[in-house]
Amino acid sequence: MTSPKHDLIYRRMAALDIGGTKIAACVADASGPLLRLTQPTTRSGNADAIARQGLQLIDECCARLQFDAASIDTVGVSSCGPFEVRDGALGFIPPNLCGGLANGEDLPNDWTFLPLESVLRERFATVHIANDCVAALQGERAFGDAPDNSVYVTWSTGIGFGLCVDGHILNGKAGNAGHAGHMLLSETSDALCGCGNRGDLEGLIGGRNFGKHLGRPLAQIFSDARQGDAAALSVVQEAARWFGRALYNLVTILDIESIHVGGSVWRHNEDLLAPLVRQEIDSRFPALTHNVKLKGATLGELVTDIGALALVAPQVWIDDWQVRRPWELLRTLNLTLAFADKDTGSRHTPE
Amino acid sequence: MTSPKHDLIYRRMAALDIGGTKIAACVADASGPLLRLTQPTTRSGNADAIARQGLQLIDECCARLQFDAASIDTVGVSSCGPFEVRDGALGFIPPNLCGGLANGEDLPNDWTFLPLESVLRERFATVHIANDCVAALQGERAFGDAPDNSVYVTWSTGIGFGLCVDGHILNGKAGNAGHAGHMLLSETSDALCGCGNRGDLEGLIGGRNFGKHLGRPLAQIFSDARQGDAAALSVVQEAARWFGRALYNLVTILDIESIHVGGSVWRHNEDLLAPLVRQEIDSRFPALTHNVKLKGATLGELVTDIGALALVAPQVWIDDWQVRRPWELLRTLNLTLAFADKDTGSRHTPE
Repeated sequence: MTSPKHDLIYRRMAALDIGGTKIAACVADASGPLLRLTQPTTRSGNADAIARQGLQLIDECCARLQFDAASIDTVGVSSCGPFEVRDGALGFIPPNLCGGLANGEDLPNDWTFLPLESVLRERFATVHIANDCVAALQGERAFGDAPDNSVYVTWSTGIGFGLCVDGHILNGKAGNAGHAGHMLLSETSDALCGCGNRGDLEGLIGGRNFGKHLGRPLAQIFSDARQGDAAALSVVQEAARWFGRALYNLVTILDIESIHVGGSVWRHNEDLLAPLVRQEIDSRFPALTHNVKLKGATLGELVTDIGALALVAPQVWIDDWQVRRPWELLRTLNLTLAFADKDTGSRHTPE
Repeated sequence: MTSPKHDLIYRRMAALDIGGTKIAACVADASGPLLRLTQPTTRSGNADAIARQGLQLIDECCARLQFDAASIDTVGVSSCGPFEVRDGALGFIPPNLCGGLANGEDLPNDWTFLPLESVLRERFATVHIANDCVAALQGERAFGDAPDNSVYVTWSTGIGFGLCVDGHILNGKAGNAGHAGHMLLSETSDALCGCGNRGDLEGLIGGRNFGKHLGRPLAQIFSDARQGDAAALSVVQEAARWFGRALYNLVTILDIESIHVGGSVWRHNEDLLAPLVRQEIDSRFPALTHNVKLKGATLGELVTDIGALALVAPQVWIDDWQVRRPWELLRTLNLTLAFADKDTGSRHTPE
């Protein structure tokens, strides 16, 4: 145990945000996040390659900050899922990264399970791992305004959720609570989701399938809809209807008071989507939907990184950061590293 | 605060189970439930008539047991919902009892809100109220085998749920978590639910709508299906499919490990339904559905009564009752009272 005074003067922590396309590492002290480095997620090597890439990124942060990496004993991790527990330690089995799982994508590996907790425990005394949307909700709870009964949802390529009921953020048997993007909504749609479902929320309106039959990029569908293009507008209206039905389902299942939405699809089009989604929720079961709030997430693009820090940050940091909002500085302390994939020799361009 | 020894020697508690058709009251001491009285639910008088009927039933239990009613300071209540908080106290607004809410039924009252907590607090120092399925799950957790991530579901006229995640039974902003029977599943069905939804789980396969187009009583549909009647079998298969899709949704939303099913539809037909429902769950997203258990609830018909007691019973009672299962005696200590409805003069026949 450390004292609040020790936490304020000496303590440093790391955070990792592991996604299907990139990893972000961040190092913080009481003053706030100090540096953030991102790199494309490796797809080759041993099954622990991604966890080790995370460690290297933290080391790189420390080197650039002229810190001794051994001075960091705690890491908070927000990661894509789903998770699986093997030998008592959490790992993940994302179908878009694991070549050994039947997924239809051509991946330079035969991975079936990616260890995470066991690798990070080699280095850190405290390791807290959560699904990225669960971490995001932790961030919105710590630094935003998400109340005791609230949902965080990200709507981008995938659709993921963090759920909080009675002030308790839900984890579930293997940390997979919140996979509500795989909730079945349509019994007639043949829209295929990456998980194999047809007619689940992500299959219907995740970024990959959104208005697919129009053959236009997603941003153009929204811009066409704004110009009054009937086909584009109809796609947007139908997507909002599905999203609203899913949110209504969560309100009625969990008796939620507030929904906090992030992700690129929502962030760029909230003005168009919010009234349509609102209408879909409000049209049902007033005893449960009355006064339910629908709003954009406050932490924006950094929500999962700040969420990962919120998983482990001492309360004295959180209390102070609520006022100072130091993560807003990260925009100027944010570097993207190119990544040389050793096995293929190919060089990804940083985003 | 009372000591375990005081609880064992002196303490008595009451439980109420308030449903749309009947109310049950039960009085218990450390030895177990002592007597259970049931009566048809009143539908006339002031809006507090149902809560006061509950008090009278507890008084009647005490009189028959030759107890001083004042010796009881604690009541656990399982009630139909939905709940609403007014002036800081929980009440309920069930559409099938409240004549003042647009519901299409002809009721001899203009009720819009039924106070519950405020009336019970006039008499009892400790009042714990939960939705009937939340109470049932509390009972299955205390005396059955429902683990930390589990769902209780009743499938009868209505379809209701109790949800437990990470060992925490979910309540939500007004105690309405678990209204998952109103989850939208079909975008094409015009099956109308009492809540006004079309295509939600209860509208699709609640007892009122189950195989409605066949024009046969529910028990006959199942018995015809067992005899190989193709139309009846197809109705049963489709119902099982919807039920399975709803349970899959909860597994993927909450990362549940075990589903405990009660209610008359399931209880009488588990042999026919379980394999069909099982198949629907298992066919999706193995990372989440792998090894999820599906089983009948262990407390049977008394699950909501025992659940209401479990809400308030001291731990020393629960520990002892787990071994002795004293509620099994309730079958012989169970009386149904006729109820004279004062306003109409009609006399209901006890069930």
